[in-house]
Amino acid sequence: MALAGADVGGTNVVVGLVGEDRRVLARAKQDTPRSVGALVDQVAAMVAGLPERPEALGIGIPGIIHEGRVVQAPNLEGWDRSTDVAGTLADRLGMPVALVNDAQCGLVGEWVAGAGQGARFLFGVWLGTGVGAGMVLDGRPYDGAGGGSGEFGHVVVRPDGARCGCGRRGCVEAYAGRRMMTESVRALAATGRRTRLFEIQEAKGKAQATSGVWAAAVAEGDPVAGEVLAEAVAALGLGVANVWNLLDLERVVIGGGMAGKLGPYLAEGIVAAARPHVVRPIAADQVVAAVLGDDAGIVGASEAVRDPGRLPA
Amino acid sequence: MALAGADVGGTNVVVGLVGEDRRVLARAKQDTPRSVGALVDQVAAMVAGLPERPEALGIGIPGIIHEGRVVQAPNLEGWDRSTDVAGTLADRLGMPVALVNDAQCGLVGEWVAGAGQGARFLFGVWLGTGVGAGMVLDGRPYDGAGGGSGEFGHVVVRPDGARCGCGRRGCVEAYAGRRMMTESVRALAATGRRTRLFEIQEAKGKAQATSGVWAAAVAEGDPVAGEVLAEAVAALGLGVANVWNLLDLERVVIGGGMAGKLGPYLAEGIVAAARPHVVRPIAADQVVAAVLGDDAGIVGASEAVRDPGRLPA
Repeated sequence: MALAGADVGGTNVVVGLVGEDRRVLARAKQDTPRSVGALVDQVAAMVAGLPERPEALGIGIPGIIHEGRVVQAPNLEGWDRSTDVAGTLADRLGMPVALVNDAQCGLVGEWVAGAGQGARFLFGVWLGTGVGAGMVLDGRPYDGAGGGSGEFGHVVVRPDGARCGCGRRGCVEAYAGRRMMTESVRALAATGRRTRLFEIQEAKGKAQATSGVWAAAVAEGDPVAGEVLAEAVAALGLGVANVWNLLDLERVVIGGGMAGKLGPYLAEGIVAAARPHVVRPIAADQVVAAVLGDDAGIVGASEAVRDPGRLPA
Repeated sequence: MALAGADVGGTNVVVGLVGEDRRVLARAKQDTPRSVGALVDQVAAMVAGLPERPEALGIGIPGIIHEGRVVQAPNLEGWDRSTDVAGTLADRLGMPVALVNDAQCGLVGEWVAGAGQGARFLFGVWLGTGVGAGMVLDGRPYDGAGGGSGEFGHVVVRPDGARCGCGRRGCVEAYAGRRMMTESVRALAATGRRTRLFEIQEAKGKAQATSGVWAAAVAEGDPVAGEVLAEAVAALGLGVANVWNLLDLERVVIGGGMAGKLGPYLAEGIVAAARPHVVRPIAADQVVAAVLGDDAGIVGASEAVRDPGRLPA
């Protein structure tokens, strides 16, 4: 029997059908609606539109989930935390529904079917608009006392450093979140530095500098984009080294939108930037790019409703 | 039936008898011998000297332990990693013997019988000559893929900051390890700043500035010691905030020699220093001083040989 996995992002909602073998059999992608009511309708319709009726549905959400409820979802506009999304959808679809954090979903997807296979101690750095993280510790997905673990984006790597979107200073996300990186390019452009990032964005008809826009700018050697990316890699490397020292991991997976095209480049840069700071050596193949793309979130979300006895160990 | 716990430090070896109720019924303390052979003899004699024959023995060691073997113990002079300490002692004493990391032992002791009771997500910062750490995650002691987790002392909080004993820069231990703190006082004294730290050390007849010497200097308001301690607290606060953001914990316990007299002062300072950097609020009673003193290590070590079904949950 198949399961469904959904990944609700700030821009898109992706829903997929996942087989027993953890492969995605079918998938659909739509714009994220503005209200939670419309989101429930849309996910229900997308699940109903899958080629086979799944047994259960797991949904990844960019926010803090605790005991099946959304505690905080700052990047979902119009989200009302009082709505019991899982309960409403379960009633509507007549199947079990579980909510989980999206970065954790992405890592779990890579763990069971992608770049994290075979590891029991795994850290996932998810790079998109912001910076999220997931963990598998001692063979179990870890989400902390209140579902709020993985705030790697707000680990401070530069005390008194750059201002972050969260209001604090020196967070990893202030350097490595795509939104903040784009702001940095804009600030450098305002000082007279020449960059093609915004021309590429316009040529691609995007409302913002997406991961694809960034990848294109880096690919053509845009010096300002390259400089900002190098700072991101340095911040990520230091952050990853600190997690490595603290948790004694086997592997780190770099995923999310920014890892789509830039993954191997980022993984290589992060290892190099982490090395000077690690107590135990970190090998080149211990920091790897995610391989499943959008499917990581789908597969990971579906794991939340899979018989827990079937987790890999 | 009682168990035995031993805590092998760079200076002393402590062995205790621990009851079913996790209280220490008897204890002995001796200087740490120079060779691992002498250590085995001494621990065997100390265990034989306990008022009751224990069922099993757990030993905390300042080093990396993996699958019962010492992988690395940089602070134990003359230690030979090829010696199977646990196996040799088990043969000699005729009882099961397990090795565990000492900071982890201290935290586990506080978890089952002290300041960490009731928490399932717990971080322990152990302050002594260096800085160690222990973790209980989701109700289980955590030691990482290869027994090397908890290198909180070498988490970098000040990139390009002070030189650490490990050769790297800006580690927590470079600011908050007693050995490095004493070096900082010495360096400030060399610039003409007046401090009583070394006079107090001499008056107490100590070969180095012990935790007791430090506590006395702070108690009498020594400005140089106070300044160095304030920097230690700032570094610890930032480090703790980063761990808090990453792991979503319930409680942090401050233990080790430096926490003996200065524990509550350190706990209060660390909360205040962590606050500006945390994503989720950290309450004053979520960072607490250890309460068991030397007994934490004894009790925690004995847990390593207690029926695992008896762990608190």
